[in-house]
Amino acid sequence: MNLHHPEEVLQHPEEVLQRLADEQEIRALGYRFADACNRGDRAAFADLWSADGAWAIGSPFNVHARGLDDIMRTLEELSASWEFFVQMPHAPVVTLEGDGARSTWTMAEHAVSAAENRSYFNYARYDDRVVRHGGGWRFLERRYEYYYLDDEPLVVTGERP
Amino acid sequence: MNLHHPEEVLQHPEEVLQRLADEQEIRALGYRFADACNRGDRAAFADLWSADGAWAIGSPFNVHARGLDDIMRTLEELSASWEFFVQMPHAPVVTLEGDGARSTWTMAEHAVSAAENRSYFNYARYDDRVVRHGGGWRFLERRYEYYYLDDEPLVVTGERP
Amino acid sequence: MNLHHPEEVLQHPEEVLQRLADEQEIRALGYRFADACNRGDRAAFADLWSADGAWAIGSPFNVHARGLDDIMRTLEELSASWEFFVQMPHAPVVTLEGDGARSTWTMAEHAVSAAENRSYFNYARYDDRVVRHGGGWRFLERRYEYYYLDDEPLVVTGERP
Repeated sequence: MNLHHPEEVLQHPEEVLQRLADEQEIRALGYRFADACNRGDRAAFADLWSADGAWAIGSPFNVHARGLDDIMRTLEELSASWEFFVQMPHAPVVTLEGDGARSTWTMAEHAVSAAENRSYFNYARYDDRVVRHGGGWRFLERRYEYYYLDDEPLVVTGERP
Repeated sequence: MNLHHPEEVLQHPEEVLQRLADEQEIRALGYRFADACNRGDRAAFADLWSADGAWAIGSPFNVHARGLDDIMRTLEELSASWEFFVQMPHAPVVTLEGDGARSTWTMAEHAVSAAENRSYFNYARYDDRVVRHGGGWRFLERRYEYYYLDDEPLVVTGERP
Repeated sequence: MNLHHPEEVLQHPEEVLQRLADEQEIRALGYRFADACNRGDRAAFADLWSADGAWAIGSPFNVHARGLDDIMRTLEELSASWEFFVQMPHAPVVTLEGDGARSTWTMAEHAVSAAENRSYFNYARYDDRVVRHGGGWRFLERRYEYYYLDDEPLVVTGERP
């Protein structure tokens, strides 16, 4: 049953409003994650996670961070690898499940290290579990699994102003 | 006339809520389409279409599928062409029109067939007609028209884990 | 304090509804901008701006347009450079601030001029100030700052149908 039909808006407006607010904020969580990564805002990144959150990056890297301290250490290590890094989230699909929710995204990332003559480009899927935290939502778990990965050494031709 | 101004929320809250719910679900339809393609979930893909839906992919391929059986057959044929396929939807613009609606998207797609040493990359526009179906929304028509297409034979350098 | 928590929906539904409507329309403004650029719809592009709007494109191009006439002239000049241009907005983050708002986006753009054997690819950030205008929202300022720019001469291999 789809809950968005006109009668529900008239009969249960608070439920529709709550669902729209929850879905919008859960998508915003993924958007804020990418924005914080791309501008290098550590405080904004930390604010997205539950204190007992878990962050997993799949094969072939197999990174597992558990708890906010470990997550922030992992972010520092990953950030140190690249002069330039951009993450692009696409196609958020949110599923509310009682007091929690799941979200899934199609991701693209591109990074360059001119110093090491390395480039990193990938498509992947983020599968998330999110939880209510105070009045909002936080990531309890993000799992990144690669669809496609190209990390060959490359000649860097781009200018970075 | 823009309907989102503060007075409307006070005077006609049900109409604003219905519009937000409809727009959100119509965008979600396009996001779920990409997600289903990218993870290869046939059942989720089938669930997005009106039974009398039509799917058109423009020049130079000129694919036309009509009705759900034909649409699913077309999906099978397209999927068999590629080991890897990813679709990225951007910039949804939704226009509600009475009992139906239109949506339009800026798309990017990337696919690789290592076996055939072929790659496929494109930018395109999806123009959709969507209809209410029971309580929800379904695609009545999706038309994919290429802005840019690169399907030259390519040396595949990416690892796919 | 996060305002989306369940009690707020029951106690202040109009405020939640107004916030969702505003956030949705501000994101839609950025999506409509990309859509108008990509399909070349000048009238739709003009409709997104406050009459006293400002559009800035950062280093190394340093383009500054002020007022709608200047903005539209700038669009004409930029459009004349490329046979093909596509803009992809990602990760909208909206912050409501009294009667105005800010939005920020992670952007990608790709353009090709076969005639001049030139290509243009970039990642960037759009930082926007938006204002209520009548019942809706308009751009008061958009500032585009490059994260990454590749505008080397390139051999064009793509077909454009």
